[in-house]
Amino acid sequence: MSLTVVGSIAFDAVETQTAKRDRLLGGAAVHFALASSFLAETRVIGPVGDDFGEAEYAVLRERGVITDDIEHVPGGKTFFWAGRYERDVNVRHTLQTDLNVFEHFRPKLSEAAMASDTLFLANIQPELQRAVREQCEASHFSALDSMNLWIDIAHEALLRTISMVDCVILNDGEVRQLTDEPNLVRAARKVLAMGPRVVVAKQGEYGAAMFTQDGVFGLPAYPTEVVVDPTGAGDTFAGGFMGYVAAHAGEELTDELLRTAMAYGTALASFNVEAFGTERMQTLTGEEITARVNELQRISAFAPAPLELRA
Amino acid sequence: MSLTVVGSIAFDAVETQTAKRDRLLGGAAVHFALASSFLAETRVIGPVGDDFGEAEYAVLRERGVITDDIEHVPGGKTFFWAGRYERDVNVRHTLQTDLNVFEHFRPKLSEAAMASDTLFLANIQPELQRAVREQCEASHFSALDSMNLWIDIAHEALLRTISMVDCVILNDGEVRQLTDEPNLVRAARKVLAMGPRVVVAKQGEYGAAMFTQDGVFGLPAYPTEVVVDPTGAGDTFAGGFMGYVAAHAGEELTDELLRTAMAYGTALASFNVEAFGTERMQTLTGEEITARVNELQRISAFAPAPLELRA
Repeated sequence: MSLTVVGSIAFDAVETQTAKRDRLLGGAAVHFALASSFLAETRVIGPVGDDFGEAEYAVLRERGVITDDIEHVPGGKTFFWAGRYERDVNVRHTLQTDLNVFEHFRPKLSEAAMASDTLFLANIQPELQRAVREQCEASHFSALDSMNLWIDIAHEALLRTISMVDCVILNDGEVRQLTDEPNLVRAARKVLAMGPRVVVAKQGEYGAAMFTQDGVFGLPAYPTEVVVDPTGAGDTFAGGFMGYVAAHAGEELTDELLRTAMAYGTALASFNVEAFGTERMQTLTGEEITARVNELQRISAFAPAPLELRA
Repeated sequence: MSLTVVGSIAFDAVETQTAKRDRLLGGAAVHFALASSFLAETRVIGPVGDDFGEAEYAVLRERGVITDDIEHVPGGKTFFWAGRYERDVNVRHTLQTDLNVFEHFRPKLSEAAMASDTLFLANIQPELQRAVREQCEASHFSALDSMNLWIDIAHEALLRTISMVDCVILNDGEVRQLTDEPNLVRAARKVLAMGPRVVVAKQGEYGAAMFTQDGVFGLPAYPTEVVVDPTGAGDTFAGGFMGYVAAHAGEELTDELLRTAMAYGTALASFNVEAFGTERMQTLTGEEITARVNELQRISAFAPAPLELRA
């Protein structure tokens, strides 16, 4: 098993109704890798500036994440994002985005990265995702994330990249936007027709749905009572999902296996929102994850007994 | 088993992107009763005007619904609602609401209605719901629906009525609004603290969640590709849910039983949206319902295998 993620490494400033934090470790690749690290050895590719120091590397290394491919841009500053969440944490406002070293990021892959059997292309420009995908010829399973911006301004490039991956992991609104189809089931089938064999639609507090040729799987979110900081929940979900897939590299990729991958993604995302930035992932244990996956199974299980209906 | 529903009986005019229908049989009590009729003998209490004729009664009677308690108001007109759905059918606009005979509706209960063991108070003024609840002393299980209007203008009355029922079935946004609590899990716990032992939060295309003292259950919606007319989906859900409970009146009301009730509600609602008004319910068979409940079980099931995590 070897898992590589390409994406942003960031500092985030986050305001909620009860607290404010100025400089949290963040970015899609970081949230992804901390989650996937529980399931598979993970290599991160992304750019950082001079402000990214030993303390930040240590958070990744302590989880066993391989940081050799993190590209330090001398004289540069690390990607910075600032946002504010309303009392209803499902509503967020971006206050500031400084791309910094991320603006001119061109992923350079080491031999080890190119040899990965599992690949995740976090949300970056679709042409760059494609360039990475083409270099990872050994990949058995590749997936991508994207965003409304690329669906708007780089639509054809995104479609081309999608045709080259095995799996798409998007918010459900993005699946609809990508296909100009308001019905999620039809929208997901349109994405399957573009090439991927798996479409995962993240639905935030409502959970996630997965579409394959074999059918549909729906999983509710874990019922979290205290959401401190939702930043990175989607990337953490992707990390849990892809980590589980990477842990089973070489096995047949059945729907049953992918459903459990969805549960690991859901469980890990539910932990991530319990504290600011990466803090919860730094204290998380394997036992906690296993317990929550099992709890998700109990939360979503039912067994209908035979019943004579009044037809 | 005997199930009584009190609520609106209506004619609906519905516009979608592809069709327009002027006079569809509708109303909360009608949608509820057609669904519940597959599971338990159902009695409808609600007002109609002179325009409500044999054809409308026949739709209910053909499903075995008891129409003795439908109150004909001489010289009156039946409740009328007109609405338009956008291409994304999750977005709807009310074009017209004529309360007509519903405006001065005061439910009168027959002896048979008062003796029902299961009671559903569809969305009407909370004081009227309470008056009905007080008269149904024999009821073993009662539930209510409500709406944003009553949460706003009759808040205390609604809280009082909620304290008298076993179950609340609301949209998730209404659960949040009722409790002024944006987190659904905390909001549902607040409603449980008001008295009911079951809170069901309907989440539209995302499914539904159920909260009891024993825990949380989440069920995705059935993945419907063609939604013709979503009108009445929530009432149909409630009918399936309450019908299943009524079919098991006298048995212990376990979470397992309630979870299957959620599945019947979900399955019936998914059929209801496949055609305009009550049309799909008129052709529906018990075999179709059973098959869809079983399919929902397959759609939501997963079985995590033990896995050693990299802690």
